[in-house]
Amino acid sequence: MRIEFDGRDYSGFQRQTNVPSVQGALEHAATPLSKEPVIFHSAGRTDAGVHALGLVVHADLTTRLSASKLVAAMNGLLRDEAVSVLDIRETSDTFHARFSAYARRYRYLILNRQAPPAVNRGRCWHVPRPLDVTTMREAAARLIGHHDFTSFRSTHCQSRSPVKTLSRLSVRRSRELIIITAHAPSFLHHQVRNLTGTLVDVGTGRRTAASISDILEARDRRAAGATAPAEGLYFEQVWYPSEIDPFLPSTHEGEASHDPD
Amino acid sequence: MRIEFDGRDYSGFQRQTNVPSVQGALEHAATPLSKEPVIFHSAGRTDAGVHALGLVVHADLTTRLSASKLVAAMNGLLRDEAVSVLDIRETSDTFHARFSAYARRYRYLILNRQAPPAVNRGRCWHVPRPLDVTTMREAAARLIGHHDFTSFRSTHCQSRSPVKTLSRLSVRRSRELIIITAHAPSFLHHQVRNLTGTLVDVGTGRRTAASISDILEARDRRAAGATAPAEGLYFEQVWYPSEIDPFLPSTHEGEASHDPD
Repeated sequence: MRIEFDGRDYSGFQRQTNVPSVQGALEHAATPLSKEPVIFHSAGRTDAGVHALGLVVHADLTTRLSASKLVAAMNGLLRDEAVSVLDIRETSDTFHARFSAYARRYRYLILNRQAPPAVNRGRCWHVPRPLDVTTMREAAARLIGHHDFTSFRSTHCQSRSPVKTLSRLSVRRSRELIIITAHAPSFLHHQVRNLTGTLVDVGTGRRTAASISDILEARDRRAAGATAPAEGLYFEQVWYPSEIDPFLPSTHEGEASHDPD
Repeated sequence: MRIEFDGRDYSGFQRQTNVPSVQGALEHAATPLSKEPVIFHSAGRTDAGVHALGLVVHADLTTRLSASKLVAAMNGLLRDEAVSVLDIRETSDTFHARFSAYARRYRYLILNRQAPPAVNRGRCWHVPRPLDVTTMREAAARLIGHHDFTSFRSTHCQSRSPVKTLSRLSVRRSRELIIITAHAPSFLHHQVRNLTGTLVDVGTGRRTAASISDILEARDRRAAGATAPAEGLYFEQVWYPSEIDPFLPSTHEGEASHDPD
């Protein structure tokens, strides 16, 4: 299932007691459609306030409905939620939304102007100080590759190793918006938000692009910038090997081949 | 003053008793900053739910604050509102936000996919049936120009004449979004929403592009399509003669020369 959601209404993807979660909303909607209780597994955990444009989740579900009827039924049942089901495919037992994924892409939106957001409230980080995209790009170039990202990792991160490969990190401006795109096989907890906070420090001139190498080398969370707010972050896309990708070759292919950078 | 707002929270621009309005929010914010009660005049009236990206409003305001300090003060006072002040300029008594304007541009956003909007809830019209942009463009071409737009005018319209010049009407697709842009010296009440409703009928094949000429000729509201919902409509920009445009030559110029079509 590919889903889109507005993270403002949720305490994150993961089900928790007494607070609304995306997983809870999906399971509450799907349970009457199936013979057994339904449990969803996601390609990525998202924090409270983080949005998704194309997150993939999977579940075991026993139903007579076709995939396309199930999309309509789920969206009907999710009517009062800020979650929308984009697409559903049947897949094999070997597919796992999280463990089968080989790459993920996040997007971070910064509104870089004096005035606070009105139409985009809760969906971007408002940075009123002018940002220099050229130096932010120089800094981003130093972050790409195989590094120990301890300085950009939440102290609550449960990943076994802080060493990750950042395949791509682009920074571009579209009028008042600055769009940061991060592409990697997998990410550490808060990695994109911590990278963004540090790139913004470079953009305002508080740090130099060259300082990035020292920050990486420090292997100390305190060496890098603050964690950028959740509301600017979007889980954008996830990739699976073509042999098991349930969304190939029809709808997903066009988007997967599209390069927004 | 150039303002942006999310129309979902308001019953429209115009002040009304006991319901939130954009005008009411602006006047409530500005009054403590001025020696006299402040009354705002807008370049365009907008209905309940309609958004604005760059609406111009004016008011007589006696204050010691500079324009840039006034922007900060207004945005501080509007903190809990979905209204943001983009820019403020001092101008002459001859300037009137509505009567000095010689052109306006509206944008209409359609989300054309099966799944309902999640991230863009309340900010687009969800049309699940596939729309053919090519025939919609053919229909749009027949609407451009000097016409009697009675068939596209709300029965509550107070304009003296139904004859208007539609300078530009473009339809383009950006992935799942269809963006309709309408540019004219002035518009009739509901004109953009009625044009959009009719273009969507053409896009689904319910009407032909050629039928547009008959609809115009009928001079009967019942001949055209339904009124598209307010939530997809954005007041985008307004133009003033350069001699009196308070936003020239600095911030506004770059945008005014930008052509989004």
